Amino acid sequence: MYLSKNDLEKMDSRYRATLINSLAGYKSAVLIGSQSIEGKTNLAIFNSLIHIGANPPLYGFLCRPDTVKRDTLNNILETGFYTFNFVSVEHYQKAHQTSAKYDSDVSEIAAVGFTEAFKNKFQAPFVSEAAVKIGLKFKERVDIKINGTIMIIGSIEFLEIDVHLPSTDGFVDPSKANLLACVGLDAYYKAEFIDRLSYAKTDKWPESLK
Amino acid sequence: MYLSKNDLEKMDSRYRATLINSLAGYKSAVLIGSQSIEGKTNLAIFNSLIHIGANPPLYGFLCRPDTVKRDTLNNILETGFYTFNFVSVEHYQKAHQTSAKYDSDVSEIAAVGFTEAFKNKFQAPFVSEAAVKIGLKFKERVDIKINGTIMIIGSIEFLEIDVHLPSTDGFVDPSKANLLACVGLDAYYKAEFIDRLSYAKTDKWPESLK
Repeated sequence: MYLSKNDLEKMDSRYRATLINSLAGYKSAVLIGSQSIEGKTNLAIFNSLIHIGANPPLYGFLCRPDTVKRDTLNNILETGFYTFNFVSVEHYQKAHQTSAKYDSDVSEIAAVGFTEAFKNKFQAPFVSEAAVKIGLKFKERVDIKINGTIMIIGSIEFLEIDVHLPSTDGFVDPSKANLLACVGLDAYYKAEFIDRLSYAKTDKWPESLK
Repeated sequence: MYLSKNDLEKMDSRYRATLINSLAGYKSAVLIGSQSIEGKTNLAIFNSLIHIGANPPLYGFLCRPDTVKRDTLNNILETGFYTFNFVSVEHYQKAHQTSAKYDSDVSEIAAVGFTEAFKNKFQAPFVSEAAVKIGLKFKERVDIKINGTIMIIGSIEFLEIDVHLPSTDGFVDPSKANLLACVGLDAYYKAEFIDRLSYAKTDKWPESLK
């Protein structure tokens, strides 16, 4: 099946959105916790997390300013703090439900059946059920000119994970905690570990690190 | 296990890099094909693909200017064209091997055992074995101030997928083509579809679209 730029332009806009979003493939489903200046808590699922760097430890994610998830963006820009929460596969329906358009004064955390947790006087809520919890501080806003999306970059203030998760070299296998993966805006996946491979060199084939 | 910002700063730098990169979770493994002005082809694996928008169809990925993958960045900035190639799980070793530091005049496509393909006089090579092939045109370079990484954004010129892959609403389930997922720089995964859920509304629980 061949689709040209012209074919894509003429396509029904919802079909195109679903196609293009899903073709970007697998992502981690991350639940972003935030809090307004007035102390109202918020939780929303995002599928656009990327690793920006390790020193300092930086993650980014994308916001579309015109969506329901504007509360998250506003809270982060106002307070400077937010949380990443990675939940396991069995919570996929609750995770998805955070994308409903709840009023700003309703906390999605309780509304979908998760438990709100606060840590270290951090100014953003965590999801108690999350196997991996990361507290972030806002660092840089990147405005993408071509379509007005915004990338929010933050640094890790602290993180909390099961002590058995990191291997001896620091690698965390998300499938060990059965963490939820997603595709597009509505499809959920579990992942199965295949292999880790040695640093690639030109004169030999990579070896399994299993 | 609790790790503060200070704990992360004091950590061995390789341990920290592996930890922080792997905590970003699942990604699609995308092989980016490009070509120098002189016509030398190049292929490199990236784990930082994000969907930027559907109208126009835009994808982004991150480059670290100081890595072996500089060839990809240079080629894209010089020619303005590149390709995304998604391969299936059985090709994970070849995909990984594209990250070896081959000389600029060696094409990783043949060196790792893939087959080079050209389409529509497009100025960048495809991987013949890829189940999903996307031709992209460079649109925007975003310089991330905090650590000097670069996001490259491109629009879809054309794409080629198996005619049976898109469902009636445009959704492509990457696990149908057994596409390769990855975590960090060296871990590979296969994914299993769980469910698709209806558009979330505040007054009811999402329904399965399976």
